[in-house]
Amino acid sequence: MEVMQVLHMNYGEGETSYAKNSNIQRKIISTTNSRLKEAILNIMCNNKKVPESIGIADLGCSSGPNTLMVVTEIINIIYATCRKTGSSFPELRVSLNDLPGNDFNYIFRSLPKFIQKIKEEKGSENCYVVGVPGSFYGRRFPNKSLHFVHSSSSLHWLSQVPFGLATNARTTLNKGKIYISQTSPSDVIKAYVSQFQNDFSLFLRSRSPEMVPGGRMLLSLMGRSSIDPTTEDGCYYQWELLAHALSILVSKGLVEEEKIDSFNAPYYAPCPEELKIAVEKEGSFIVNRIEAFEIEWDASFSSNSSTQCEDKKILLLSRGQQVAKTIRAVVELESMVENHFGNEIMDDLFSIYSDLVGDFLYKKKAVYVNLVVSLTRKN
Amino acid sequence: MEVMQVLHMNYGEGETSYAKNSNIQRKIISTTNSRLKEAILNIMCNNKKVPESIGIADLGCSSGPNTLMVVTEIINIIYATCRKTGSSFPELRVSLNDLPGNDFNYIFRSLPKFIQKIKEEKGSENCYVVGVPGSFYGRRFPNKSLHFVHSSSSLHWLSQVPFGLATNARTTLNKGKIYISQTSPSDVIKAYVSQFQNDFSLFLRSRSPEMVPGGRMLLSLMGRSSIDPTTEDGCYYQWELLAHALSILVSKGLVEEEKIDSFNAPYYAPCPEELKIAVEKEGSFIVNRIEAFEIEWDASFSSNSSTQCEDKKILLLSRGQQVAKTIRAVVELESMVENHFGNEIMDDLFSIYSDLVGDFLYKKKAVYVNLVVSLTRKN
Repeated sequence: MEVMQVLHMNYGEGETSYAKNSNIQRKIISTTNSRLKEAILNIMCNNKKVPESIGIADLGCSSGPNTLMVVTEIINIIYATCRKTGSSFPELRVSLNDLPGNDFNYIFRSLPKFIQKIKEEKGSENCYVVGVPGSFYGRRFPNKSLHFVHSSSSLHWLSQVPFGLATNARTTLNKGKIYISQTSPSDVIKAYVSQFQNDFSLFLRSRSPEMVPGGRMLLSLMGRSSIDPTTEDGCYYQWELLAHALSILVSKGLVEEEKIDSFNAPYYAPCPEELKIAVEKEGSFIVNRIEAFEIEWDASFSSNSSTQCEDKKILLLSRGQQVAKTIRAVVELESMVENHFGNEIMDDLFSIYSDLVGDFLYKKKAVYVNLVVSLTRKN
Repeated sequence: MEVMQVLHMNYGEGETSYAKNSNIQRKIISTTNSRLKEAILNIMCNNKKVPESIGIADLGCSSGPNTLMVVTEIINIIYATCRKTGSSFPELRVSLNDLPGNDFNYIFRSLPKFIQKIKEEKGSENCYVVGVPGSFYGRRFPNKSLHFVHSSSSLHWLSQVPFGLATNARTTLNKGKIYISQTSPSDVIKAYVSQFQNDFSLFLRSRSPEMVPGGRMLLSLMGRSSIDPTTEDGCYYQWELLAHALSILVSKGLVEEEKIDSFNAPYYAPCPEELKIAVEKEGSFIVNRIEAFEIEWDASFSSNSSTQCEDKKILLLSRGQQVAKTIRAVVELESMVENHFGNEIMDDLFSIYSDLVGDFLYKKKAVYVNLVVSLTRKN
């Protein structure tokens, strides 16, 4: 399975589309706002003079209501700073990057309005937005063309299923599981850790020549708080429940057991220490901060804590559907699951999955751990 | 009707798609190859040293088999020159521009293979391809970022229906016609000429700050040889026949007569003198050459001149279908005709149109006139 060809968020605007189910992403982006401001101000005031032209890249921009959210925020910060310092608005070169399978048409059709709005609100026609298709695990931008690199909810996707766990390896090393689990043998964990280290290091090596000295990078990705990746802190439970849902389909004769054994998600949720060591090892960037935020699985839906117990169960079961829908559209990567298990089981799978998620939410407080990493390109 | 929202080549790979009916465009691109070589060599050898980074834009790139043809040719010329002069391969920044309605997803999915091929054949990973959505009648690129601008078969599209002839003007000035015709009053011709002058001037003004001094521009567009736009030289006959086909639908009660009166194509085929004067008036560019090439309507289909008369008629009628299909996909702008007259008449319309084109080909040698303009950005 070629991750690059298969991986994309759900298209369009239907019930299971990314566009309608990306509230968690929006939540994550908003938690990083203060860090964003800090980074942009640093770029603008670093040399006492605002640069004439600023290159910005959003890596893994996806296509949905959040796509232009970060860029809008960046432009607002730049505009406010220019007004405060009396500088003229710089030329902005904005690159929206994602895999070639991303729905760029959807983004591009919303751009004329976006550009028009900047023109009206900021009086600037000096903003150039382009689409850059291709994996961020590799060079994507010209030399020294970027002042600021942003990536949200993307770097937890590996460039490939960890070596030795891929389908064609015909391995049953991670039997019955589709990601690191409490029952996973150490070889599985090693394979995941090693793939992440290789990918993240390649990511940094690729960005290094693309960024100007002093340029800033703000990354947020799914992670975990604990060093041990099998500690139950929500960083892998979404996969555990999906594997459970698949095993129910096996018992119903709808999925072959070997299909689960041969599937391993190209995903890894690192801990802050792993990120820090990887950045230091690569050597081109200074770590300003690494922070971990907890976000409840159902954070994007309004809650009512005074609800009675039975009501609460019903409420959480319906939340289960909502959360599963979010995961279906985004986090679990429907396109990839579908590619491996076939389109015909998807609705059954996610129906069972919704029930399992609802039940899980009833029993536990389930959280994602979101890591926010702020880096500076060394001079 | 907003040209920017409606104008695009036919999507996908179906029978009436642009991807399957773009042979004339391919023919046009290949006639300009020697001019392309001349321009690229000039950029590379102008300063005695090959630039470290070269910015290239293809404006109106569309989405089909021709989209990467020009870029491939440019890369081949650059590579050959580097080998000859012993220079290292420069960084290439390639921008593919078209309106936001263009099918960029189609292009982007073919890019990984394209980049891989350059890497294998030229040993270069230094080529960055981006998509730039938006009208070329306006700024689209950062200051001084482009060394070479190419546009093929796009600049004959106006930014809007000429002022005074638009649908909402409720004018019957150009009664029964949809473009300049022998029966068009002089006000219609004046409106078209003036719209083209405004648009082409805006095009040049927009490119002027985007290009480096000494940068080159190669434009090819539908045009005409004669000063008088109503001279019958094929530059407007495609529209004349389409208006005729529409009038047949009126007689069948399938289209209202007013619908034709209120439709005017946002298209203009200039003569070389008009282009020359416009470039000189704008003032940022030197005209190196303006050339006119004739291309037969059915140039993309093989011919057999020894065919008997009756056979020839059958042959030409079937060519009529082919040519109409090409025009349906590209030249006549199906998306725009459909937007005005409604989807339900499209098949009837193009069936009648095929017959008229076939008959026309039987009676006359029908040619497009393609103008090729080579410009240099003044220092």
